[in-house]
Amino acid sequence: MLYELHYWPGIQGRGEFVRLALEAAGADYVDVARGRSGETPGQGLAAMMHVMDSPDVLHPPFAPPFLVHGKVIVGQTAAILLYLGPRLGLVGKSEVQRVWTHQLQLTIADVVVEAHDTHHPIATGLYYEDQKPEALRRAKGFREVRIPRFLTWFDSVLARNPRGSRYLVGGRLSYADLSLFQLVEGLQYAFPKASRRALKKAPCVAALHDSMAQHRRLAAYLASERRIAFNEDGIFRHYPELDS
Amino acid sequence: MLYELHYWPGIQGRGEFVRLALEAAGADYVDVARGRSGETPGQGLAAMMHVMDSPDVLHPPFAPPFLVHGKVIVGQTAAILLYLGPRLGLVGKSEVQRVWTHQLQLTIADVVVEAHDTHHPIATGLYYEDQKPEALRRAKGFREVRIPRFLTWFDSVLARNPRGSRYLVGGRLSYADLSLFQLVEGLQYAFPKASRRALKKAPCVAALHDSMAQHRRLAAYLASERRIAFNEDGIFRHYPELDS
Repeated sequence: MLYELHYWPGIQGRGEFVRLALEAAGADYVDVARGRSGETPGQGLAAMMHVMDSPDVLHPPFAPPFLVHGKVIVGQTAAILLYLGPRLGLVGKSEVQRVWTHQLQLTIADVVVEAHDTHHPIATGLYYEDQKPEALRRAKGFREVRIPRFLTWFDSVLARNPRGSRYLVGGRLSYADLSLFQLVEGLQYAFPKASRRALKKAPCVAALHDSMAQHRRLAAYLASERRIAFNEDGIFRHYPELDS
Repeated sequence: MLYELHYWPGIQGRGEFVRLALEAAGADYVDVARGRSGETPGQGLAAMMHVMDSPDVLHPPFAPPFLVHGKVIVGQTAAILLYLGPRLGLVGKSEVQRVWTHQLQLTIADVVVEAHDTHHPIATGLYYEDQKPEALRRAKGFREVRIPRFLTWFDSVLARNPRGSRYLVGGRLSYADLSLFQLVEGLQYAFPKASRRALKKAPCVAALHDSMAQHRRLAAYLASERRIAFNEDGIFRHYPELDS
């Protein structure tokens, strides 16, 4: 059955973590809000907003991204991956592996919130320009303390994997590997200097990032027009004054 | 098998969401870091730090809370509840119910991060006093926009439940109900004025909160010494200047 991904059309954002899983698995999916409503019936931003606003939806998503799969609607990036993981073959079979993979995903989600809040430390409803002094302060702690701490932790997870440091969980690809790849991509875009320093001390994370980029389907996706470029409307924004 | 909850001993914090599930289910558990190391072998803060720091732990938690259950170690509040839910009878049996319950939990986790960041908008490593002007700005948006938006959303979830608005998912108690109770408790402590206003427009949430407080085991727990009082070291802090 077709997967429908619903997410804001102009940014990678949180939707990208879901997109990478769908792409790496070669899944049959539509990126609903990016379809043109005039050309493809039931697509476009209006189609996404229709689901968001419909009082008939029993399980309304609080915010995009959300997945529609037949009658099932799932919101929250990590919950979507929890649902997709077994279906796409992107998580181990045992309960312990599944919960551990999910725990890694939730820690990635924590970094994503903190990365977002470097440019929006006061309110999502305000422009970056309206919270720039606060952003400068917040980004300092993120660069100097949080990025190193998170990447070092992921490095220790890889180093401790009894099946080797090629993947985060066991001896095969999981959605958490794809998400860690995306996290590194985002950090490198937004904080090139701070990321370079932190990755030097997290060699297993750097190696995982580089090896993911070689994954056949992922590489094809990254080179395609389906991959939206990073930009300053997304979560990972490159404001040079926030990096150093 | 005994559950070991590991969390900072002086605060409710994120550990409380796990504690409420264990308490409401009448589970056999120890609150490891709150045990006195001199009295009970293997307990106390040192026992928690030992797990955190041990290079032999294959699945190291990034931060407390974490659960130890036999050989299994699970970190991240929502992942712990994902693991405990079926074991404690605090989640439905179908996959759709489980993912939906988890999605609700992740949305509660989002509010918790935002509540924390009202008093720590710049850095967790700094004191509140060192980020007070920023906290005043951030709290304003949280009070005026975010609390109402989140509580209204949970209200619509309850109102749409085909089995009635007594519980978030189906016709029986889940860990998400307990967590929503705790979220309301925390918001009422930290932002009594803003919460009162928002709860008036979220009557189903207010009713769920009141009904949870009547739950036999939960009521016994709340009245016991095991319930740590809210305080200004935790996530929900009452700084009157941040409420209005």
